[in-house]
Amino acid sequence: MLSKNKKKFINSLFHKKYRQQFNLFSAEGHKLNYELISSGMKCKELIATEIWLGSNKKLITNKNINTTVASEAELKSISNFKSPPPVVGIYEIKTRKIDPESLSNDLIIALDEIQDPGNLGTIIRLADWFGIKHIVCSAGTADVYNPKVIQATMGAIARVKVHYADLPGFIRSYSNQTGKPVYGTFLEGENIYTKKLPGKGMIVMGNEGNGISKEVGKQVTDRLHIPNYPPGSISSESLNVAIATAIVCSEFRRRTWD
Amino acid sequence: MLSKNKKKFINSLFHKKYRQQFNLFSAEGHKLNYELISSGMKCKELIATEIWLGSNKKLITNKNINTTVASEAELKSISNFKSPPPVVGIYEIKTRKIDPESLSNDLIIALDEIQDPGNLGTIIRLADWFGIKHIVCSAGTADVYNPKVIQATMGAIARVKVHYADLPGFIRSYSNQTGKPVYGTFLEGENIYTKKLPGKGMIVMGNEGNGISKEVGKQVTDRLHIPNYPPGSISSESLNVAIATAIVCSEFRRRTWD
Repeated sequence: MLSKNKKKFINSLFHKKYRQQFNLFSAEGHKLNYELISSGMKCKELIATEIWLGSNKKLITNKNINTTVASEAELKSISNFKSPPPVVGIYEIKTRKIDPESLSNDLIIALDEIQDPGNLGTIIRLADWFGIKHIVCSAGTADVYNPKVIQATMGAIARVKVHYADLPGFIRSYSNQTGKPVYGTFLEGENIYTKKLPGKGMIVMGNEGNGISKEVGKQVTDRLHIPNYPPGSISSESLNVAIATAIVCSEFRRRTWD
Repeated sequence: MLSKNKKKFINSLFHKKYRQQFNLFSAEGHKLNYELISSGMKCKELIATEIWLGSNKKLITNKNINTTVASEAELKSISNFKSPPPVVGIYEIKTRKIDPESLSNDLIIALDEIQDPGNLGTIIRLADWFGIKHIVCSAGTADVYNPKVIQATMGAIARVKVHYADLPGFIRSYSNQTGKPVYGTFLEGENIYTKKLPGKGMIVMGNEGNGISKEVGKQVTDRLHIPNYPPGSISSESLNVAIATAIVCSEFRRRTWD
């Protein structure tokens, strides 16, 4: 049975303010909780139906996780979904310091003011696919522990480390300390399909409406462009930022097979 | 002033049943309406603030569009958004018959039971970017005139033609009549980065949870795979369908620059 206080507490985690205060976030649904626990995220508690707890005994006892049995109606009252999930998990937020120099052997992503939680979650998921282990976000980027972001990552949040920083300052330190290139996509950049791309460096992606900010843009050493088709056609269209990130990451990684 | 009846009528267009009955759909916001009208979509009416109508006079009179002045509160009452858009437009749905043979010189996309409106809209938008003019959807795919789809296309819906069909039957006719390859992505497909890809053919993308259905899968002539990184790594992750579509389309089009 879910107490009124616990219900209130879990619902408070839908808000960034309380997530920061308690250093906790929530995740809904079987697949997501399964992934998070299996990947070693620290789970404080699982609120779930008796059936779910019964069929996931091994997962729970292995990790020694506190559990609370809840009815479907109770789960609905702590859910963002239309139909109640069989399980809601509460997880500890890991706060980490990131040293730019430690990233010198990686391909990393930097996000400059990404606003849409779905876009952020999708970018984390595709970073995981392409073996990108670190994403550095500007302070104004959507909160990675927003339930919509967590949902869209499909569990990738357990493997990709997301950091928040003063982005222009961070990139400056990164450039100075690693000497690695900083890539960004622009309308007047070099054709990404023909450009030589290394396995190490930083890929900067910009805000949904405004692209890369002026201050961050100054730190970009290599300006790239994803050409539309047919070549040279003038169009009013643009690409969604998660889509553009996917194409850029795919281009960096495909060179392995060239 | 917006009459009670008109309000009710416009809100009815949020439902597929009424969109089909009236053969109309609605679109919200300046950018989207501007794109739709400029691209030649047949606009039945614009409901907008006096300010918006004043600053878009040329667009409206050029196309001889009926207009209704509405207050912010009235626009809010016919909007899906949290903050009311300055304009809501009502457009005619074009129903078209598609002859598979007429597609033989194109690269086209087929969607097998895509459920999420955001995914469908994003795929239409990226198809536009990559010069793909036709998308054929299975009957169970999300409705293209759903307001969330229209929104996510960012106006690309005015340029990309979306058809609904019995997909297995359509692909059979397409293969027989055009002799062109039918591509699909599978876990055990050929590496898309090294495979020779033509400028003509059909790219099939499958449902978010289940991928390409068995019946459609049988019609696929060329099975492709997007490798994750590092090569050969085993991972539980997968890619969102719009992200996978973007990478596949980018691969087909990038060969132009090879």
